[in-house]
Amino acid sequence: MSQEATWDMLVLGGTVLTMEPGSEPIANGAVAVADGHVAAVGPAEELLELAPTGEVLNAGNCLVLPGLVNTHAHLAMTLLRGLADDLPLMEWLENHIWPAEREHMTRETVRLGTELAVAEQLLAGVTTTADMYFFGDEVSAVLAEAGMRGVVAESLIDFPTPRCATPEEMLEKQRELLEAYRDHPLITPSVAAHAPYSVCAANLVKEAELAEDFEVPMQIHLSETSWEVENLLQEKGLSPVAYLADLGVLSERTVAAHCVHVSTEDIGLLADFEAGVSHNPVSNLKLASGVSPVPQMVARGVKLGLGTDGAASNNTLDLLRDMQLSALLHKVINQDATTLPARTMLEMVTVSGARVLGLEKKIGTLAEGREADLICISVNEPHSVPMYDPSSHLVFAARSADVRHVMVRGRVLVRDRELLTLDQERIEAQAREFSETIRSD
Amino acid sequence: MSQEATWDMLVLGGTVLTMEPGSEPIANGAVAVADGHVAAVGPAEELLELAPTGEVLNAGNCLVLPGLVNTHAHLAMTLLRGLADDLPLMEWLENHIWPAEREHMTRETVRLGTELAVAEQLLAGVTTTADMYFFGDEVSAVLAEAGMRGVVAESLIDFPTPRCATPEEMLEKQRELLEAYRDHPLITPSVAAHAPYSVCAANLVKEAELAEDFEVPMQIHLSETSWEVENLLQEKGLSPVAYLADLGVLSERTVAAHCVHVSTEDIGLLADFEAGVSHNPVSNLKLASGVSPVPQMVARGVKLGLGTDGAASNNTLDLLRDMQLSALLHKVINQDATTLPARTMLEMVTVSGARVLGLEKKIGTLAEGREADLICISVNEPHSVPMYDPSSHLVFAARSADVRHVMVRGRVLVRDRELLTLDQERIEAQAREFSETIRSD
Repeated sequence: MSQEATWDMLVLGGTVLTMEPGSEPIANGAVAVADGHVAAVGPAEELLELAPTGEVLNAGNCLVLPGLVNTHAHLAMTLLRGLADDLPLMEWLENHIWPAEREHMTRETVRLGTELAVAEQLLAGVTTTADMYFFGDEVSAVLAEAGMRGVVAESLIDFPTPRCATPEEMLEKQRELLEAYRDHPLITPSVAAHAPYSVCAANLVKEAELAEDFEVPMQIHLSETSWEVENLLQEKGLSPVAYLADLGVLSERTVAAHCVHVSTEDIGLLADFEAGVSHNPVSNLKLASGVSPVPQMVARGVKLGLGTDGAASNNTLDLLRDMQLSALLHKVINQDATTLPARTMLEMVTVSGARVLGLEKKIGTLAEGREADLICISVNEPHSVPMYDPSSHLVFAARSADVRHVMVRGRVLVRDRELLTLDQERIEAQAREFSETIRSD
Repeated sequence: MSQEATWDMLVLGGTVLTMEPGSEPIANGAVAVADGHVAAVGPAEELLELAPTGEVLNAGNCLVLPGLVNTHAHLAMTLLRGLADDLPLMEWLENHIWPAEREHMTRETVRLGTELAVAEQLLAGVTTTADMYFFGDEVSAVLAEAGMRGVVAESLIDFPTPRCATPEEMLEKQRELLEAYRDHPLITPSVAAHAPYSVCAANLVKEAELAEDFEVPMQIHLSETSWEVENLLQEKGLSPVAYLADLGVLSERTVAAHCVHVSTEDIGLLADFEAGVSHNPVSNLKLASGVSPVPQMVARGVKLGLGTDGAASNNTLDLLRDMQLSALLHKVINQDATTLPARTMLEMVTVSGARVLGLEKKIGTLAEGREADLICISVNEPHSVPMYDPSSHLVFAARSADVRHVMVRGRVLVRDRELLTLDQERIEAQAREFSETIRSD
């Protein structure tokens, strides 16, 4: 902090949770933003004494915290939200989702579905999202235009996608994406292999090499169902996690989605290789895949984030709701009400999620020098009163509809619950039209 | 329907889900209300042709359905929301909640906490709530003033409460409540015995007789924890459910909260005695009590409703969120994604919940002649688009913040998300003051 503070914006009032290790909430706090970064954090009184320049964003009666990080999603699948519910994974995937994707997912509909997902997530306080889908260049363009942060992959799978006919073509498109978005301030390009059961060993290795060459995350679905684990054990004699380790594919670049059916040995491998895991509780419950041993992974030091998965298996991208559900779920599964306390859950959607996506130097806490991704959550409704503890409030009582302001890299994207960078009405109208097309199939 | 329709209000537009058995959603529907009752339901075009009198409530871009029914709550405990989290039930209850209640719960604070609970529930689309606490006359007065429907009990327990020194005094206060609220249009007075482990057999029997005399529901916590079940098995050689049956206490008047640890025999007894069960998933998860075998109870024909429990173990009264969590939870526990499909869950918070509270002739569906308790849920936000199926949308995607209008017995209590019958600002300010008092202990 300097005496000649030149700030672009001062987020003023409210209680600030920086999410720095060991930090306490700052009542009547403030966050100063300059050049897209956090310039200062502290009591409002102290920051105001520096007689700052810049606009004020009113965070009175709010909790101010780092923007939420969604570590696993398929954004464009918002268009398939609620298309097929109450069905088991394989029937859902093979008889409903994949046919709908083959028939209806084009560059244009991927743009539309991604716009809808960005609108939904920003309004729900999610400032960074992973994406694992097709037309990664289109997805990246939508995110960049809307000002949202993303870790975006073009997907690799051993059968034709809506975009590419062969894995070779997919790898080529992946390389193009990695080159196009090198050093972008908001978009981290990424690679993604669908799963160990749908991508052959040779392609998994190619994928890991590409991630290594470009120093980017590699997203993959891993140990989602017991079927997947049993199958691989039978075919290769290895669990999916051990199989990736054996291939040399598992690394600190890995973003492994699900990890529902992982053994103690698997958890050890994930921790030792410093692989990131995205826990996607709602999807795992909805498809009856199982419950991931999250407390055991936390205890072993695995990097853990929280993901919504695609809207077709959730059916929202409401990370705050999913955090609440996860906090409650693991208490009963572990028969211990002290399991995963509120602070641990909050870390999972902020600082720990950032680590999973390799973004821990940029985002995840509100420390000076970090990029200014933050949200203001209103605590002015009956369900927010009284509030004995802010962390507990966020985990057990807050709603995504309480999100009042959203900032990414210093730019206000949502102000007073209004989305500023996307035409919400046009997007919703087009999404409704799209659903009429599917319905008339 | 007559050609000279004289209606007080026409709820117009939107898709109407009457929740009548086998009914289909009515697109561009309408609900006519006269004298506090549903006078007609059908396509808007048909109802408008009757050239009705009366005000129009705009439900365009909404789902219109019966108001939600909360079958188990301790309303005034909103004041203890988040006071003690991430703790096991007995520690939570004995070291935190009971001491706070003894110290701070008076007639005045019960009024305040109940007002806060009514405000929260109405804004979340809950139109009928059970309550099991102290100062039932004060609770009833608050509900009646706010226009909300309630099944209200004065509680009986074998040790002193904030109101009464002895069980005899409690029974006397119960009788007074039953007499005062006979035939009230909104309040069903009720009795409540805390639990089989905290109320002796003689008092349980007295309580059931009182319920029988006045033909009212008898609320009770039942088989909430494994500790409770093991204890009773050891002491009496009977499960809590069998014990109540043995005492002659179990009947169609029973509203049994929790029923987490119930055997196949217990489930059979609950079904055969036509007892109602309130499933309270969030509370059971948060306190790590266990997961109630809901699908098994549904299969056996047990009357089932959904409850929030008190805000101290939830931490909200957001029944819609709790329904979503329940729908997801039982799929994974039963390892079957088809478990408790959306329609079943919706019935649980409407028509089936009404049956549990003995109100099935008055509320629970939007059939002609029922009392006009209804809610309009907006589907105009990104997370609501597209919407392939209204039931699925409500169970997997809708949020309580989407509730736009709320009507109870023909009276609009919430319009365009604004609470009309309570002073929200004053209540929140007083609740904050109350929390400062506890904090300074």
